[in-house]
Amino acid sequence: MWRTPGAPARERAGTVSPTGTLRIAVDLLGGDGAPAVVVDGALYACRADPDLELLLVGPPDIAGEVRAALPAGHQHRVAVRPAPRAAATADGPVRGGRAGTSIQAAVAAVAEGAADAVISAGPSGAIVTAAALGLGRWPTMRRPALVAVLPAVTGPVVLLDVGASVEARPATLAQHGLLGAAYAAVRLGLRRPRVGLLSIGVEPGKGDRARRSADTLLQTSALPAAGRYVGLVEGHDVTLGGRADVVVTDGFTGNVLLKGIEGAYAMAGGPEPGRIAPRAAMLLGVAGAVVVCHGAASGADLAAGIALAATLHRDQVTATVAGMLDDSTRPLADQDEVSP
Amino acid sequence: MWRTPGAPARERAGTVSPTGTLRIAVDLLGGDGAPAVVVDGALYACRADPDLELLLVGPPDIAGEVRAALPAGHQHRVAVRPAPRAAATADGPVRGGRAGTSIQAAVAAVAEGAADAVISAGPSGAIVTAAALGLGRWPTMRRPALVAVLPAVTGPVVLLDVGASVEARPATLAQHGLLGAAYAAVRLGLRRPRVGLLSIGVEPGKGDRARRSADTLLQTSALPAAGRYVGLVEGHDVTLGGRADVVVTDGFTGNVLLKGIEGAYAMAGGPEPGRIAPRAAMLLGVAGAVVVCHGAASGADLAAGIALAATLHRDQVTATVAGMLDDSTRPLADQDEVSP
Repeated sequence: MWRTPGAPARERAGTVSPTGTLRIAVDLLGGDGAPAVVVDGALYACRADPDLELLLVGPPDIAGEVRAALPAGHQHRVAVRPAPRAAATADGPVRGGRAGTSIQAAVAAVAEGAADAVISAGPSGAIVTAAALGLGRWPTMRRPALVAVLPAVTGPVVLLDVGASVEARPATLAQHGLLGAAYAAVRLGLRRPRVGLLSIGVEPGKGDRARRSADTLLQTSALPAAGRYVGLVEGHDVTLGGRADVVVTDGFTGNVLLKGIEGAYAMAGGPEPGRIAPRAAMLLGVAGAVVVCHGAASGADLAAGIALAATLHRDQVTATVAGMLDDSTRPLADQDEVSP
Repeated sequence: MWRTPGAPARERAGTVSPTGTLRIAVDLLGGDGAPAVVVDGALYACRADPDLELLLVGPPDIAGEVRAALPAGHQHRVAVRPAPRAAATADGPVRGGRAGTSIQAAVAAVAEGAADAVISAGPSGAIVTAAALGLGRWPTMRRPALVAVLPAVTGPVVLLDVGASVEARPATLAQHGLLGAAYAAVRLGLRRPRVGLLSIGVEPGKGDRARRSADTLLQTSALPAAGRYVGLVEGHDVTLGGRADVVVTDGFTGNVLLKGIEGAYAMAGGPEPGRIAPRAAMLLGVAGAVVVCHGAASGADLAAGIALAATLHRDQVTATVAGMLDDSTRPLADQDEVSP
């Protein structure tokens, strides 16, 4: 059952409940279709995984609808934490991530040990702020990154950052390259993951000033998991794969590219049956499992995001990745930022 | 027939040969598959359009192969201008665009009046430099833009810049918004084209500093062709359409996005039969018709690019767009650049 807020906080990263249950805090008010699509997603997720327990954060009457829709023997799996209002995009990241919004309350549930992971389809800036403030950042990581995994011909491609920060900074790009290598090793089981830096051509020197500086930093960085930096890659390498397992870019370019690819697959009917472009990304660089869904997420997307949050906690992804990174990212944490 | 270099230069923009022929200078040495795919493209193009004449710029023996492959009555349609070497990416934009490369020689043919338009699949930086030096920039346009037209559900979407410059500058973004509106009106026949600024969300304030400044500039700019600025748009608006007819971004983001979309369509088999993502873009902002093909262009792509170059000249697109823009872009040409 759910702990009350007064109970001692359990270790946030890397512990699995002795009963095998996974407790996911769900922001009922995040996303363009909230709360209806979040309700749908919560119901799908409960039916798909009997080990899931959901802490629905938002209006209690909406949470009650979810509970009422479940069979009697499963209603105990849904609890509620009241939160009166959503983080509106107009709030901006700072007010949206503080100020008693449903995002802030959902993150607080993880911070207090009342949930194992959190998911929201609200404004990503507000989620990043709430998570950084509520859970704390990894000590040597300059900025958190939103990480998406895309299907490609040759296997999955890890793309980051897809929207946690918007200005391209060389040392942040380099740190995110290391982060992506660790994530690919832990989550996808890749040995010696290949990391590429997204640019407008593969020849050395292609791209803007931030890319040229980041390229130099990555060439001289030790990558975790025996990862290899393969140099510059291009937009089609994200969709086709083959050249790199991890593609690193700034959050502006990554967000635009991810949405453009999603749109192309929507136009064309998907990369192939059974493979879909992701509408849920993981936030890495904060001390907890945080999943961010696309604002236009459907109920099925929310359910996939809830399942991702459960997997991240079950496999202790956050803690393992953080443990792999501490030493290798420290030199870049101290790196003077080169102006892009 | 082809003029000799010593003949008086004809008006570069907007004139059509009295015989109805269109003379396209083709860089034989540009692109990953050159010269073989350029030879293929030249042959396709000659067969498809009997009004075309080609000035092949590069090794005379390669040009001779093209001529020999045409029926005897058509061999006069192919002429050659010797150029010993390609612009290698390692040259960088400045050396690649000068220094007697095939790109520079092909642009010079247009400048001298020996050709009506030019096409190359060489490094885009070298082509932009060669065109700006050889043909001259439009007086009030800060930087040229590479313009691509993509298929979308609701009709074509004009995307610019897709690689002519790499740093995002607010006044350049705003000027390119005006340029895109004029191009959409002239080339696609759109009335009151809607211009959107690519960002990571549609709400005001979303994006980086360059985007926020450009948004303000576009809100206060008079768009040509009674165009309307519709504010921020996202990556999927480029592929799905509906929100804007013209999407403006910096050349780094636009290049990455275009290649990512191309890769997604390659994965998925295209947006729908008969529609293809473009592999040829037009360079606007210089005094002549210049088409840039993807470095990995196939012979069919080259042929499509040659046909595009012919259309641009036949329809006097460059001169008409330039004429629509002069007054509206002048305030932005004088605008102090806001540091991104």
